[in-house]
Amino acid sequence: MLYTDSLAANLQPWLDRLRNGDPLTLTRAITTVENRSPGWSELLKAAFPQTGHARILGLTGAPGAGKSTLVDQLAKQYRKQNQTVGIIAVDPTSPYTGGAILGDRIRMQDHFSDPGIYIRSMATRGSLGGLARATADVATVLDASGRDLVMIETVGVGQDEVDIVRVADVTIVILVPGMGDDVQSIKAGIMEIADIFVINKSDREGADRVEREIRALQSLAIRSDRWTPTIVKTVATEGTGVPELVAAIADYQTYLEEANLTLQRRVENWQERLVEMLRDALLEKARSQFVDGSVARYAAEVAEHKRDPYTLVEEIVGKMGKTA
Amino acid sequence: MLYTDSLAANLQPWLDRLRNGDPLTLTRAITTVENRSPGWSELLKAAFPQTGHARILGLTGAPGAGKSTLVDQLAKQYRKQNQTVGIIAVDPTSPYTGGAILGDRIRMQDHFSDPGIYIRSMATRGSLGGLARATADVATVLDASGRDLVMIETVGVGQDEVDIVRVADVTIVILVPGMGDDVQSIKAGIMEIADIFVINKSDREGADRVEREIRALQSLAIRSDRWTPTIVKTVATEGTGVPELVAAIADYQTYLEEANLTLQRRVENWQERLVEMLRDALLEKARSQFVDGSVARYAAEVAEHKRDPYTLVEEIVGKMGKTA
Repeated sequence: MLYTDSLAANLQPWLDRLRNGDPLTLTRAITTVENRSPGWSELLKAAFPQTGHARILGLTGAPGAGKSTLVDQLAKQYRKQNQTVGIIAVDPTSPYTGGAILGDRIRMQDHFSDPGIYIRSMATRGSLGGLARATADVATVLDASGRDLVMIETVGVGQDEVDIVRVADVTIVILVPGMGDDVQSIKAGIMEIADIFVINKSDREGADRVEREIRALQSLAIRSDRWTPTIVKTVATEGTGVPELVAAIADYQTYLEEANLTLQRRVENWQERLVEMLRDALLEKARSQFVDGSVARYAAEVAEHKRDPYTLVEEIVGKMGKTA
Repeated sequence: MLYTDSLAANLQPWLDRLRNGDPLTLTRAITTVENRSPGWSELLKAAFPQTGHARILGLTGAPGAGKSTLVDQLAKQYRKQNQTVGIIAVDPTSPYTGGAILGDRIRMQDHFSDPGIYIRSMATRGSLGGLARATADVATVLDASGRDLVMIETVGVGQDEVDIVRVADVTIVILVPGMGDDVQSIKAGIMEIADIFVINKSDREGADRVEREIRALQSLAIRSDRWTPTIVKTVATEGTGVPELVAAIADYQTYLEEANLTLQRRVENWQERLVEMLRDALLEKARSQFVDGSVARYAAEVAEHKRDPYTLVEEIVGKMGKTA
């Protein structure tokens, strides 16, 4: 690709175009980073110094919680305050086909006339994780492009989502009334990552019960920043509660700043991210050890019980140390 | 712990106790493997040669889909056929507290009188993934203990769950009618991992619509094994459809065996698992590079934008090659 071939030679003009919000430059940069195309690493290194401006919101919740609608409403609200918005919608798609669903195209039509809102869908990236890493890197590009606000929206409540929203300055967990008997256990799992709880579809029966359950669980948890997560009730389809959610987000950020915790939170996030980045770099190195289809041969030997996989991996790691 | 201290010296008697189904030996072995306590690696190496007997079922679905109830019903059904069952229930719990929910204790009471059913809950293991790996290792221990059937049950539909059920010989995806507007995208994401679809709570309105949607999506997908995933309707709370599900599982396994695909599937699974195991081993090595609190120092420098994380990680990996 001409764009990445000429990247090194044209880094400064490219950075200027990115910072000036040129949409084509932004889209190409994100694609390069997401696909790990040639030049992705140089691109991030160059973009990093001009990051740090954007506030990053992470939003997660179970399927059917109405995340997309809520994110769209939030975007509209922030646009009223003249803030530019980038949205990363992380979609649960097949690890085998790698195809993204087309939700972003449908949603883009809504905001098509407003260059102040940029929406990007991301699919899962293969079987070895890395989606959280890719999401964080795309957020870095959006930050470097001068967006005031980056929203990362992700489906589900598993470890993936915890990793994905870890990059955020503010994490919002979206619940809905009447999601069935497993909801209690989900809430227990995400108590600590939520800075703000949203009870969406709060016109449904059971919204007060969900609120009571959150409060009950909160009484058991102690946060290192001593913040008691706010609970905001919304009906995203009608925009109800969205201004209150914007206010709650601002309140939490004010709290962090007044308590001098903003940097501390980012340092903690970076601790995790650095270890993850190191792991990914080592995985690349590991994969290069499996040359000439040797992983297929090893896998066949293990599947046929001719070889024990635990000893095998120790041997490979030992050899790597010596030959690297 | 005396148990692991004396492990190396007493491996054969221990293996015999494990194979004979001694519950205390089994519980201790699983705890050792799950917590990566001293001796975990030797334990797995020793247990591996006596694995390969158990059939491994992976069950996943959204919160509220009724997975636990269905798994319990399946266990009862298999017990009627005199098969011994191990259940690994992977719970979405906090990455910070690491606490498991107590569901297994409640569920255990149901089966308390039957040593033929063994239930174990697993929590998430920190921020760096590894849960899929730990789950696979616990399945290995259960297999080595002589269980005829190991069921791995997990909440959610994200990448975590794909990794967790990858170890399975048969993967079952549980859907329910009326889960809201995001269901379509979830189904798209898990089409390829489902060997069998269960529509649970199928007495609810919309079960036929879910079935039609699965069929519509199936017409787009081509599986390498050419199997068309079965759809089974159940009402797990009443046991309805459970014998049909057991039959569908047997049908798929017969299909794989007649087409000589059982080994091929296991080889493919092991390819992924070997790379994951290598990654984990390298991560351990990576963590040991961050000595003397240097990760905290680096994270602070990055958070303050004094250092670019991408170059930093490259430098550390480069240095590892030389000093390892």
